[in-house]
Amino acid sequence: MLKHNSYFDGAVQSIGFERNGLRATVGVIGAGEHRFNTAAAERMTVVSGCLRARIGGQDWALFPAGTAFEVAANSGFDVLAVGGPAAYLCEFLG
Amino acid sequence: MLKHNSYFDGAVQSIGFERNGLRATVGVIGAGEHRFNTAAAERMTVVSGCLRARIGGQDWALFPAGTAFEVAANSGFDVLAVGGPAAYLCEFLG
Repeated sequence: MLKHNSYFDGAVQSIGFERNGLRATVGVIGAGEHRFNTAAAERMTVVSGCLRARIGGQDWALFPAGTAFEVAANSGFDVLAVGGPAAYLCEFLG
Repeated sequence: MLKHNSYFDGAVQSIGFERNGLRATVGVIGAGEHRFNTAAAERMTVVSGCLRARIGGQDWALFPAGTAFEVAANSGFDVLAVGGPAAYLCEFLG
């Protein structure tokens, strides 16, 4: 039921789950700058640490723990963790 | 740097990380009631869904998303996810 995902040689890892039709993952972004492309739209909520992200070609912005950003379907974002690994909740909206 | 952990035949899975000397995991509790014993004290924050937990022999209590509970060192807690898998952030305090 739960699914472990590993990206970029393990620098980003997550656990996928589903509840009441909501598909989501919790994960950690480690070292390096990475790009993720979206199929469904998604909401990324930072639960520990701080992310720096560039969403859909906009300017880079900081997202500290407790904040969130949304990414449109069929789009993408660049992301890196600031000051050490950061944990997130990713909820698929579409 | 990141470490995938799997417990109870994959019913509970987490990703471990460390930042500024803080050891933490994010994970998901799936089906079933499980017991975790602590070495260091820890704070469990529910980030998605709802947990039911019995901490150190006290009564069972509900912890919906946004709430947290702490578990003493050399103690333990019983836990289950209510209404589907629940995601958590576990921070080691000791």
